[in-house]
Amino acid sequence: MPTPRTTVKRHAERGAYDRAAIDAILDEALICHVGFVQDRQPYVIPTIHARDGDTLYLHGSPGSRMLRTIRTGIEVCVTVTLLDGLVLARSVYNHSMNYRSVVVLGRAAELADRAEKLHAMEVVVEHIVPGRWAEARQPNEGEIDGTTILALPLEEASAKVRTGPPKDFDEDLSLPVWAGVIPLDLRRGRPYAETT
Amino acid sequence: MPTPRTTVKRHAERGAYDRAAIDAILDEALICHVGFVQDRQPYVIPTIHARDGDTLYLHGSPGSRMLRTIRTGIEVCVTVTLLDGLVLARSVYNHSMNYRSVVVLGRAAELADRAEKLHAMEVVVEHIVPGRWAEARQPNEGEIDGTTILALPLEEASAKVRTGPPKDFDEDLSLPVWAGVIPLDLRRGRPYAETT
Repeated sequence: MPTPRTTVKRHAERGAYDRAAIDAILDEALICHVGFVQDRQPYVIPTIHARDGDTLYLHGSPGSRMLRTIRTGIEVCVTVTLLDGLVLARSVYNHSMNYRSVVVLGRAAELADRAEKLHAMEVVVEHIVPGRWAEARQPNEGEIDGTTILALPLEEASAKVRTGPPKDFDEDLSLPVWAGVIPLDLRRGRPYAETT
Repeated sequence: MPTPRTTVKRHAERGAYDRAAIDAILDEALICHVGFVQDRQPYVIPTIHARDGDTLYLHGSPGSRMLRTIRTGIEVCVTVTLLDGLVLARSVYNHSMNYRSVVVLGRAAELADRAEKLHAMEVVVEHIVPGRWAEARQPNEGEIDGTTILALPLEEASAKVRTGPPKDFDEDLSLPVWAGVIPLDLRRGRPYAETT
């Protein structure tokens, strides 16, 4: 599955190409960043995604410029990043971050079939809040028609992962500087009911 | 500062163009996603950034493909996204997220002056872990030379922000479905010393 375009070259030891590693990152992340080109200008737009087998779904309003642009089948890049920690070395130079990221290259196609779209909407909601599909009012036909859903095949993708402690130079190890990791975690707080 | 390219059209009420709003988001975020084009393919790469006045710094290894590509002065898009909450409406259709994002368009230029580079490295470290510059061993000349630093002017940028409760349709308000917000927060855990 890795191609020259998705092979990790810088810090090659951080590259991962097996689908299990890629899927786990895609499934944990709540949002992705979608890159596309319009009039030679790259744009990067955050949006919700969800994986269904070998497909990554993107969705939103038919009025979304991002969706209107990429549904024509142009090349896109979808990147997902999870931050796991700040890595503090004894030298500034060796400071780093622990992270897990995935890059997917390809072309997205729009779903037309209403049943397929409804299924994709369920996958998206269940990805973010498992169980919510059964709780909330499900989309009616007008809402399905009023939602654009694109499918991007997971054919050309790679992951890049850094874990573990800082890596200081040997000559810095005796410096009287604290070194270690500050963990990062995107936590869900206590839900609060506040409605219009 | 907003141009047609950075004016928020979809959900225009979420757009913000004042530098205070933009700066606050850039300064809180630990990473950005950099979009650039190579051989007509867009790429989106996560990396650390830091703002210094009207400048956004990106840095990394001279071997980084991303930095080697964009230091030639091609058009880039740098996007920063903070997730603040999952917004659960009574209908699936009106589910959303609370977020704050910034999009910066422009061209980056490489810093050549060693003093300027050292200053940028300090800004980057202090952005992530305030106070760390004074604690850790600061970069020597070889490490400064071995770090590529690019400066992107904050000339064409905009923010997009969603806050607040779900917005249900009137006809859904009486449904027996819990609605509200699940807050999201990227928290720093207890640091642990673990070194090679």
